[in-house]
Amino acid sequence: MNNIDEMSVNAIRVLSADAIQKANSGHPGLPLGAAPMAYELWANHMKFNPANPDWVDRDRFILSGGHGSMLLYSLLHLFGIGNLSLDDIKNFRQFGSLTAGHPEYGHTVGVEATTGPLGQGMAMAVGMAMAEAHLASVFNKDDYKVVDHYTYVLGGDGCMMEGISSECFSLAGTLGLNKLIVFYDSNNISIEGSTDIAFTEDVVTRFKAFGFQTLEVEDGTDLKAIGKAIEEAKADTTRPTLIKVNTLIGFGCPAKQGKASAHGEPLGVDNVAALKENINWPSKEDFFVPEEVYDNYKKIGEEKAKAEEEWNKLFADYCAKYPEMKELWDKYFNGADLSELFDSEEYWAKGEKAEATRATSGSILNLIKTKMPNLIGGSADLAPSNKTNMKDAGDFSKENYAGSNLHFGVREQAMAAIGNGLALHGGLKAFVATFFVFSDYVKPMARLTSLMKLPLTFVFTHDSIGVGEDGPTHEPIEQLAAFRSMPGISVFRPADRTETAAAWMHAVSSTNEPTALVLTRQNLPQLAGSSKEALKGGYVLEDSTKETPDAIIIASGSEVSLAVEAKASLAADGIDVRVVSMPSMDVFDAQSDEYKESVLPKAVRNRVAVEALSDFGWYKYVGLDGEVVSMKGFGASGPAKTLFEHFGFTTENVVNTVKKVVNR
Amino acid sequence: MNNIDEMSVNAIRVLSADAIQKANSGHPGLPLGAAPMAYELWANHMKFNPANPDWVDRDRFILSGGHGSMLLYSLLHLFGIGNLSLDDIKNFRQFGSLTAGHPEYGHTVGVEATTGPLGQGMAMAVGMAMAEAHLASVFNKDDYKVVDHYTYVLGGDGCMMEGISSECFSLAGTLGLNKLIVFYDSNNISIEGSTDIAFTEDVVTRFKAFGFQTLEVEDGTDLKAIGKAIEEAKADTTRPTLIKVNTLIGFGCPAKQGKASAHGEPLGVDNVAALKENINWPSKEDFFVPEEVYDNYKKIGEEKAKAEEEWNKLFADYCAKYPEMKELWDKYFNGADLSELFDSEEYWAKGEKAEATRATSGSILNLIKTKMPNLIGGSADLAPSNKTNMKDAGDFSKENYAGSNLHFGVREQAMAAIGNGLALHGGLKAFVATFFVFSDYVKPMARLTSLMKLPLTFVFTHDSIGVGEDGPTHEPIEQLAAFRSMPGISVFRPADRTETAAAWMHAVSSTNEPTALVLTRQNLPQLAGSSKEALKGGYVLEDSTKETPDAIIIASGSEVSLAVEAKASLAADGIDVRVVSMPSMDVFDAQSDEYKESVLPKAVRNRVAVEALSDFGWYKYVGLDGEVVSMKGFGASGPAKTLFEHFGFTTENVVNTVKKVVNR
Repeated sequence: MNNIDEMSVNAIRVLSADAIQKANSGHPGLPLGAAPMAYELWANHMKFNPANPDWVDRDRFILSGGHGSMLLYSLLHLFGIGNLSLDDIKNFRQFGSLTAGHPEYGHTVGVEATTGPLGQGMAMAVGMAMAEAHLASVFNKDDYKVVDHYTYVLGGDGCMMEGISSECFSLAGTLGLNKLIVFYDSNNISIEGSTDIAFTEDVVTRFKAFGFQTLEVEDGTDLKAIGKAIEEAKADTTRPTLIKVNTLIGFGCPAKQGKASAHGEPLGVDNVAALKENINWPSKEDFFVPEEVYDNYKKIGEEKAKAEEEWNKLFADYCAKYPEMKELWDKYFNGADLSELFDSEEYWAKGEKAEATRATSGSILNLIKTKMPNLIGGSADLAPSNKTNMKDAGDFSKENYAGSNLHFGVREQAMAAIGNGLALHGGLKAFVATFFVFSDYVKPMARLTSLMKLPLTFVFTHDSIGVGEDGPTHEPIEQLAAFRSMPGISVFRPADRTETAAAWMHAVSSTNEPTALVLTRQNLPQLAGSSKEALKGGYVLEDSTKETPDAIIIASGSEVSLAVEAKASLAADGIDVRVVSMPSMDVFDAQSDEYKESVLPKAVRNRVAVEALSDFGWYKYVGLDGEVVSMKGFGASGPAKTLFEHFGFTTENVVNTVKKVVNR
Repeated sequence: MNNIDEMSVNAIRVLSADAIQKANSGHPGLPLGAAPMAYELWANHMKFNPANPDWVDRDRFILSGGHGSMLLYSLLHLFGIGNLSLDDIKNFRQFGSLTAGHPEYGHTVGVEATTGPLGQGMAMAVGMAMAEAHLASVFNKDDYKVVDHYTYVLGGDGCMMEGISSECFSLAGTLGLNKLIVFYDSNNISIEGSTDIAFTEDVVTRFKAFGFQTLEVEDGTDLKAIGKAIEEAKADTTRPTLIKVNTLIGFGCPAKQGKASAHGEPLGVDNVAALKENINWPSKEDFFVPEEVYDNYKKIGEEKAKAEEEWNKLFADYCAKYPEMKELWDKYFNGADLSELFDSEEYWAKGEKAEATRATSGSILNLIKTKMPNLIGGSADLAPSNKTNMKDAGDFSKENYAGSNLHFGVREQAMAAIGNGLALHGGLKAFVATFFVFSDYVKPMARLTSLMKLPLTFVFTHDSIGVGEDGPTHEPIEQLAAFRSMPGISVFRPADRTETAAAWMHAVSSTNEPTALVLTRQNLPQLAGSSKEALKGGYVLEDSTKETPDAIIIASGSEVSLAVEAKASLAADGIDVRVVSMPSMDVFDAQSDEYKESVLPKAVRNRVAVEALSDFGWYKYVGLDGEVVSMKGFGASGPAKTLFEHFGFTTENVVNTVKKVVNR
């Protein structure tokens, strides 16, 4: 490579090594080995404008191997994206700095996705490529390709070992996502040593099996070969492409390169010096970058800016020529106005007959879709059970990217991360669905949804032993606690149609956090006392006639009707209770102290919670003097009605539990 | 096929169709399509003794597609295994019956593993094959192959779509597990319809990439072809084998076969009749099985019994010739006696210097290994961080199955399910390890560990914001709540060496439930007050001088020392508090009411809990009048010390919180 390119590549290595050394923490292996492919891609192939990192039609780049964050920070600094300064680089991994240990979306400008848990970046990239394909097919006209960009993702052996990468790439191959280009940084090293001990598979052949074009770059420092591979990847208009790039982990550091020790710890002061000497770096000074290197990046960046200028012209003409498309575009990218729908009687219509909340959810979802054209989503092969199919919205497929119904296959992990990718891309409102018990598979990805503050909606049906005959492997017990305990997500378990409408309104109105909807398989009665108050998370559904109730029964979802029955029965015995419906603990906790006190007065210590799942978390509301009617262990296989009786979810048991509390 | 074989195959189909119809619930698609491969395998190739399903050297069979449970129940009934009666079959999916919706290990004799969550059975089979390889290599002598059996697993498209199957089979290929034979029931149908919509990958090529021998049976009803494939699979002594068997879902039912509707709902009375007519079944009567079919299964079973007789002779000679091996065998299969170790001063020695509990765990693990030769386990590529390497125990590899240190690669899901397989096989005491934040990936499998009551140990290190610079993607917050809320598992978060020793003692002493050890990355001081009482889950670590303390501070792990410091500081202000260490909520909850009252007297309502994770679940102990010093959101990237201060884990904040509670 010519000298300025070589120096520009080495600048990434030097900044990475220096920052990690100064922080005395970090992962130099990836940045040193992958610097050439990253530089070649960003400098000579990727479409972006350093001055406007938010440009809608930019190419996306995700560093799936998030531990190599200094690779990304170095590029952002050198290209002058988001004014990431040299001081920011010097503060790598320090509290409050813009250069966190792993790239954090929303924290550092230019970071397209939060990465770190290996493999998830791969699946988020698939989601972004699906978003691009969908939006292109909705908005592009023969003479105006207003949506036309690539998604690049870079990861290593760890990302390839994680099951989610097989899930997402098997789907990407099926969908023929040709704008997706995957860089596999292959260095044959993992933390425990050579990949020979656990990973001798032929990754290229695996990707062939998925339906990818597969290319290999023998020498990961050969910019020409890397560039040629990228061009070949773009030339394939029917398949996604894997580019396997053979690299040397910790390249350039004589004592460390090719060794596991290069992966996750600073090189050491002497080794950083040796690296600089070995690559003929002009100065031993920390964080030294020659002016000509900055100039080179600046020159490249200025060239790139023109692409956005041209797009802006193109888009202006497009809007002038297709005003109806401009209108649609605004609905997609600025959000549709749903206020009319949410003010309508139709939306809040009381349910007439007993219905499973999953079924109610399905009809409300379809109602919302009529006003929210960019609503897109699907299930991990359970749509008929999750009731998530959107009528007349089409099926997203290789033949029809315009379809809004996604078919993820039996791949809960990839589904959730793809949902994150759809939300990250912009222009779409996404949801994903599966059985609640399988939310366990979704959890690692949902955690990133919350961390990134993405308004993704999780539709979880079959929410208790109400599952019945399928038995304990399919009956959630602790899943509600798992999601309620996660920061930054709203969890709703509605009791009837009204509360399900409130839950969906909360979900699609959210702009900065995900929502999980937890829905029943079995029919539930429509409750006279249910109301929009459900939007507050918890509210008095049926009150006591006394100012200070004899007791309070708190319940959610399918158990609220049980609480209502118990109240009636207790009244006959002269015990006057209040029934509180608690569809969402987190939303209730966020209300004012006054409101919370008005619903759950501290003075009333006779409290019983009823929920057909784990009691974990409920004592926050019933305290040391209360009781929780809940599942004490796993469920069982049998008809749902039998199970509810067997496990004590009967009016009688709720009544007796309240009496026990009142009388002690 | 000859008539009796054909009728024996059809008996499986008829029993399945009738049972599912009577239950009006279940999945006929798999049993009808896979009956021939299952019959050919069980009747003509699999080694087992119907009269003794527990025979140690039997071949293992796992139905990974657990929804097809009637396939397995039909075989168990027809072979007379565990006396599963026709009445049991008639009670399919009824509460309390032996024929639960999905196969449940420990509930139904002959079920080798609980299955249902797709893909997990595949990985458990890999674990069983690893156990066989390890035990064979430890115990076999040239002239005595006392451990010599195959592991067969059967699953469909769903199992192949799940990421865990790529994780476990990539590892199986690396390890060259030639005694593992995988049946892929390929019918191109999933719940949402044809697999074309989400799964067009070439599965056979994927398995080639993993290093498997791959075979294909064109016609899934051709017993000869299936038998030939099984023989070829056994003939390959260096690679595991995939046998792709092309089947018709719902085979034999004219109106349903080949359709998604055959998968998960009863065929319908008329279709069951049509099935019987279509396959020329001799009677329309429900649950009718001709005597000659029972006789055929009986004859086959009696032949198979001889294999165990021969093995018993072989094993008796082996024990006579190698008494030292017999002694070792008993340690493996009956459990080593650790009482001496657990009574020793060495085991309970107080820690001398501040140490991370992960490091303490590593030394205790090595101490236990010296007395427990069948202790086996490893990490998902984090052994150097998890401190789980066992010195001089060897690395398990294709070249050395005798090694006890397992290298799972970056595959948390497969690791956990393989751990289940190791535990299910018998003869081994297993543990698996990763970062605590990645317990999210382990959770779906750990749930089956608990459900199956397997004494597997989970080693989770880096248990809080103490992770530091790696930031929020690597800092657990809600993971402790997720595991504490799961039924049937003990979760320990020890505070120092003494409590870590107690936690490990609990873990390896358990025979019927898993244990999770939650350990720090950072050093912790050794506590004067810590003791064996930790085995009770919660205990008074430092008491108040008053009979009724002014307040109680409850803490776990790294926060206990903070509570001790706060107590000293509060004493200076005349507030006399008790410090309770709570390493395990579930173990504490299992103590007598008297003991619990003695540790946490109901009369003392001034309670503060301190834990650097979510407060979810803590109000059970602090009630409505208490406070929890905890994480209110996600962590951040920065030095651990800075983070603990920033998020309020300081003596000062604990002191102020106690004062606030005392003074209100």
